[in-house]
Amino acid sequence: MNFKIKRIELLNALSKVSRAVSQKTPLPVLTGIHFELKNNQLTLTGSDSDITIQTKIEDNLEILQEGSVVLSSRYILEIIKKIDSEFVHIYIVDGTLTRIEGSHSKFDLNGIPSFDYPRIDFNKTGIQFFIKSTDLKSIIEQTSFATSEKETRPVLTGVNFKAIDSKLECTATDSYRLARKTIIINSDISFNIIIPKKSLIEIARIIEKDDQLELFVSERKVLIKIDNYIFQTRLIDGAYPDTSRLIPDQFDKNLEIDTYSLLGSVDRASLLSSEQSNIIKLSLSEDQIVLSSFSQEIGSVEEVLTNCTYEGEPLQISFSAKYLNDAIKSFNSQQVKLSFIGQMKPFVVCDVENKDILQLILPVRTY
Amino acid sequence: MNFKIKRIELLNALSKVSRAVSQKTPLPVLTGIHFELKNNQLTLTGSDSDITIQTKIEDNLEILQEGSVVLSSRYILEIIKKIDSEFVHIYIVDGTLTRIEGSHSKFDLNGIPSFDYPRIDFNKTGIQFFIKSTDLKSIIEQTSFATSEKETRPVLTGVNFKAIDSKLECTATDSYRLARKTIIINSDISFNIIIPKKSLIEIARIIEKDDQLELFVSERKVLIKIDNYIFQTRLIDGAYPDTSRLIPDQFDKNLEIDTYSLLGSVDRASLLSSEQSNIIKLSLSEDQIVLSSFSQEIGSVEEVLTNCTYEGEPLQISFSAKYLNDAIKSFNSQQVKLSFIGQMKPFVVCDVENKDILQLILPVRTY
Repeated sequence: MNFKIKRIELLNALSKVSRAVSQKTPLPVLTGIHFELKNNQLTLTGSDSDITIQTKIEDNLEILQEGSVVLSSRYILEIIKKIDSEFVHIYIVDGTLTRIEGSHSKFDLNGIPSFDYPRIDFNKTGIQFFIKSTDLKSIIEQTSFATSEKETRPVLTGVNFKAIDSKLECTATDSYRLARKTIIINSDISFNIIIPKKSLIEIARIIEKDDQLELFVSERKVLIKIDNYIFQTRLIDGAYPDTSRLIPDQFDKNLEIDTYSLLGSVDRASLLSSEQSNIIKLSLSEDQIVLSSFSQEIGSVEEVLTNCTYEGEPLQISFSAKYLNDAIKSFNSQQVKLSFIGQMKPFVVCDVENKDILQLILPVRTY
Repeated sequence: MNFKIKRIELLNALSKVSRAVSQKTPLPVLTGIHFELKNNQLTLTGSDSDITIQTKIEDNLEILQEGSVVLSSRYILEIIKKIDSEFVHIYIVDGTLTRIEGSHSKFDLNGIPSFDYPRIDFNKTGIQFFIKSTDLKSIIEQTSFATSEKETRPVLTGVNFKAIDSKLECTATDSYRLARKTIIINSDISFNIIIPKKSLIEIARIIEKDDQLELFVSERKVLIKIDNYIFQTRLIDGAYPDTSRLIPDQFDKNLEIDTYSLLGSVDRASLLSSEQSNIIKLSLSEDQIVLSSFSQEIGSVEEVLTNCTYEGEPLQISFSAKYLNDAIKSFNSQQVKLSFIGQMKPFVVCDVENKDILQLILPVRTY
């Protein structure tokens, strides 16, 4: 293996591909990035066996000899970040010992033979469909925070993507709150899969421009083409719970409020609550809306909400400030609407105009 | 206690005074800030019993009733940071329960009686002298990093300030390297004290403008007037070691080099060294200067230094990359000079033009 490449080109590719690499993998070869020089292309692959990211570089590349090697993700990334020239020269010195040369810098890095690297299947199998990169990114941003952190029910640690009747319904829940985003897709396909949260976060990071993305959904994995990158993730096994019964369809109490001032009030109201619970109380009546919290030890806070209108019977309801905060932040709108049925019934946050996103929060017993 | 105050004024004062407060103190009252309203002034005091910071506010303050209370540093700071109005109204509701009112926000914070707060002696005793705030700040920045992190020799965890013959000599060492800054003071005073590193870091944070600072040095403490703030710190007991014999006065090998390119090379040369040791080797000759490092496991790196001139016999010397990096960063000059005697002798880094700062580094045995 022997090639010259523009530093910034290689750096960009490495910083993305290395996102799939974990230093904690039980397989030492997976702490590295697989370099393969063949057919006028440099192919870079990183994987932690759950997520795999691959890219190919053709431009700003001069191939002197084909070949392949696995180089420590951590060190090769740092070297390419800091080396002192516009073009770098990378070649095998001996066995897997790889030299990286800049103008006055010369690194010799111990590599791992490329035949130790696991064969990863990049077959484009399963159901093919297309999605706008911005749509996929907002699905991820608007749902993934609501997944469960606990491994006791693995299916809840991912986001459920369910395609049916030309709709893609994406749901996340930790069983105390639920986030759902629905988009229209122009193809009559159906699948029902669970994508790990970690994979989704990495997908959102790789998406940089407005683009049409090509996805292949099979039983065990999803493959996505993003720009010059192929992103592949395993799926979570198991059946996602039916959450449709959770969501009330009729509400008789509605609060419309300015998003920004609600965020400020939630932030202040949760200041004094002990960090564990972070429970705040909303007291609603047509005269006054008050957000409050109380801690025996620290003190209490009362926030009179402004820029809002409430319609319905008076109601007092308590819930996690963090959940409401997460829910509100998922909207890009100036106004949000909170809809209630009763003190111990889940309530829903939605955008006044756009019904694509729904955030549901379970209350806690009022102190 | 009952007063109104401009939010931003109080916030500024609290964020500085609270720097002295530690949440880990064994005395619960010291996790709070002491508020005292008296003689048309609000006096705020924070202390961890090692460091004390006090300030007085007169402007933008309306006193309705004198009094005092201790309020949790953490919560009062957050409240004043986030409350929703330009002026805040703070008053005792009942006992030590203190209300903080904004426009639509109302916080009730449990206070601690002010008679529980320790009496802190702010007497201006001892040797008085003056120093420019910028001088004190550069002393701190150019020496304190070289103090020891280990508590085995407590005197080395502070910076030695030694005034004699109209000079102030400030020295820090962890016994593997040494940093010294000397400034001229126009008064014939003498003292020899050790100020804890933590206190110096806090002093540097409080210094915002060019100013003449007034210091009072006594046997057990130093008191400094910085702007509207009084800063007081305990001193470290014990005799500081005599370091003058450590520093060679004759050198026969000198390297002059561009600061910026040396920093880059040191950074790269230390990339592959295992994090623990971080040892790099400098190979000096009049033909070529090479910085290198080697790790059996990871690989090796060689950096040919440019923008430099070396005079003297060839020499190979190994040392900690971190120590050299810290030393170089303490200079604001474009060129630094490294002066050597031999492979196992300490070497010195200094500014080509300005002799006020001296950085000394002990080599390690070359592998």
